[in-house]
Amino acid sequence: MNCSDVCRRIYLDNAATTKMSKTAIDAMLPYMDGVYGNPSSLHSEGQRAAEALVGARERIAACLGCTAREITFTSGGSEADNQAIISAAKLGEKKGKKHIISTAFEHHAVIHTLEKLKKEGFEITLLDVHENGLVSAEQVKAAIRPDTCLVTVMYANNEIGTVQPIKEIGAVCREKGVLFHTDAVQAVGHIHINVGEQNIDMLSLSAHKFHGPKGIGVLYAKKGILLSNLIEGGAQERGKRAGTENIPAIMGMTAALEEACANIDKNAAKLSALRDKLIAGLSKIPHSILNGDAEKRLPGNVNFCFEGIEGESLLLLLDDKGICASSGSACTSGSLDPSHVLLAIGRVHDIAHGSLRLSLSEEGTEEEIEYTINAVKEVVEYLRGISPIWRDLVNGKKEFIIK
Amino acid sequence: MNCSDVCRRIYLDNAATTKMSKTAIDAMLPYMDGVYGNPSSLHSEGQRAAEALVGARERIAACLGCTAREITFTSGGSEADNQAIISAAKLGEKKGKKHIISTAFEHHAVIHTLEKLKKEGFEITLLDVHENGLVSAEQVKAAIRPDTCLVTVMYANNEIGTVQPIKEIGAVCREKGVLFHTDAVQAVGHIHINVGEQNIDMLSLSAHKFHGPKGIGVLYAKKGILLSNLIEGGAQERGKRAGTENIPAIMGMTAALEEACANIDKNAAKLSALRDKLIAGLSKIPHSILNGDAEKRLPGNVNFCFEGIEGESLLLLLDDKGICASSGSACTSGSLDPSHVLLAIGRVHDIAHGSLRLSLSEEGTEEEIEYTINAVKEVVEYLRGISPIWRDLVNGKKEFIIK
Repeated sequence: MNCSDVCRRIYLDNAATTKMSKTAIDAMLPYMDGVYGNPSSLHSEGQRAAEALVGARERIAACLGCTAREITFTSGGSEADNQAIISAAKLGEKKGKKHIISTAFEHHAVIHTLEKLKKEGFEITLLDVHENGLVSAEQVKAAIRPDTCLVTVMYANNEIGTVQPIKEIGAVCREKGVLFHTDAVQAVGHIHINVGEQNIDMLSLSAHKFHGPKGIGVLYAKKGILLSNLIEGGAQERGKRAGTENIPAIMGMTAALEEACANIDKNAAKLSALRDKLIAGLSKIPHSILNGDAEKRLPGNVNFCFEGIEGESLLLLLDDKGICASSGSACTSGSLDPSHVLLAIGRVHDIAHGSLRLSLSEEGTEEEIEYTINAVKEVVEYLRGISPIWRDLVNGKKEFIIK
Repeated sequence: MNCSDVCRRIYLDNAATTKMSKTAIDAMLPYMDGVYGNPSSLHSEGQRAAEALVGARERIAACLGCTAREITFTSGGSEADNQAIISAAKLGEKKGKKHIISTAFEHHAVIHTLEKLKKEGFEITLLDVHENGLVSAEQVKAAIRPDTCLVTVMYANNEIGTVQPIKEIGAVCREKGVLFHTDAVQAVGHIHINVGEQNIDMLSLSAHKFHGPKGIGVLYAKKGILLSNLIEGGAQERGKRAGTENIPAIMGMTAALEEACANIDKNAAKLSALRDKLIAGLSKIPHSILNGDAEKRLPGNVNFCFEGIEGESLLLLLDDKGICASSGSACTSGSLDPSHVLLAIGRVHDIAHGSLRLSLSEEGTEEEIEYTINAVKEVVEYLRGISPIWRDLVNGKKEFIIK
């Protein structure tokens, strides 16, 4: 079987970005050349846009289990992460609290913001995520100090898909009176989230990870948390985020989120069955290892390391076979450094370089999964055949790390 | 004649936002569910998006007269303004230069960023814009000090449409070795801009002001100017602006900008004829005055003050007659304060409250202009008829300010 038997292309990079759904596109279009007014304008065209904005805010809030006032529209997940963390840091600083707790495998939007704060005198504790890619509420509890102003732990990791015990971490933070933010960019629309029930004070999301448009996201901040502006200017978003509201994108995101949330159980059941089939198949490749906990992971995430090969070649040969995959985060794909996520779960450099992330969408089929398993097997075998490292491993000149 | 004789609605608020053109929408759509990959991904779907991004950057650069490397995509004009000013301020600070020159009637994205810097110890000089709404290169030259790190002067004012002598101001800044930024949000796509020829070091633009999509803009920064990040995270935009690139919006903006630039002379000729007809008509209303220079203004901008009436009522009654207009900037329309722009050109509070901005699009017709002139006349007369202030003016109990 070759790729053309299955479909033209198999897109397994949904953690990087997703195809927009028809629902989302249809929701956007009327606001491009129909109801195109500026919601700040007093005339009817402006007010129709303002009404759409009010409605979208309420619908997003309903999906997250919060109130409309707690929703701030941003240009995406990175902006929301930056604003959440900077806001909490400034609030902490006013009370003389300059300690922040996070994990070693956050997205760069979090890591780099924390690095910036470190230069400004904040102390950052990055919790160990262990070999299974999980932190515990106990670790968070033990790390909280009297001067801790923020705990920020991602909901689900963008590379290895592990899902953290957010509700329990939130409960610890509530008990200790520390703000709790979660970068939920990979989780929203894919697993059940209710910020109230899950003790979340601040949450970031990005629409293009759940078949919505690019360039739009949300920062949820619990009532009473004063946000600091990243972008100054007009009085949009209660004066907390300047710039003409991107109504078409907001409408597209809202429709995509509602659709994702309405189908969350059905999609998760389908995806996790495909995921487990894929994991079972790839596990049969000798000297391969699944990255991240097998159970506590996103329904659509598969991430493997294969000993003796180089990830970039793997991707390019899979691409030739019609499969779109990645080695990890798209945001760092230009870099030659191994993934900080894989290093955080204890993979050594050589192994981390041979990683493969396959992130599924609801459109995936069993046939595609079977084709993918065979394609990965073939490519790994081929690459090992031409790899000097693999020869040394097989000849016993080097010792296997993945047994 | 009533509105339905002309068209369903007459949209004269194009300075607030424009209707997306078919060209722009058509340019966006293929990137929503066709070439939807993340340009950071190595696979073909990602690389096709990356190629589109490279092409768009070159096309935008060609429209502005700079190189592709000098273009940074942002979420809009406000973000671009913030990033430009913060970057120049940080560069200045390193050299001990903490003085910034601007004008009294900038957009709030500039004004509020300058206010933030003032709190951080920067000294801000706001130049007088005189009754005609213009600053001169001589004023800028006289204000430059050894510790000046930035001059930021808007290309065209968003309320009264006056176009500043940008090339001359840029030349003064070059001569003195001071960075020069211009908020060109209202100008780009409407008047000829070439950053090289016009001595511009940094320029902000926003796509939705020239029939492109909302939520996307550009910061041009001359080669060698180190930008500071507002949004930390992935390595997009040469590491200077994190977040998955909004390819559909970038493609829409690029198409809209090319279309606008290709038709700039034709559109300007049509618009300025309509504008001058509208100005001539409204000037006949007694005790009315045009705000801003009659010649050095955007082809599509008309802004008047009418004595004895209140702007909000004027807008609502015009809306009833099918005309979308504004009193000034959409970004501040919730506010009861009079426009800082009108105060800057010397209008007193009472007069500034009775302002009307009509901003035209290329789709406008002479018939619409005639209808609008009559509608404004009727509404102003009606409002004056019920205004106690007007009665006092007519009875000589108060003195007319607008003669």
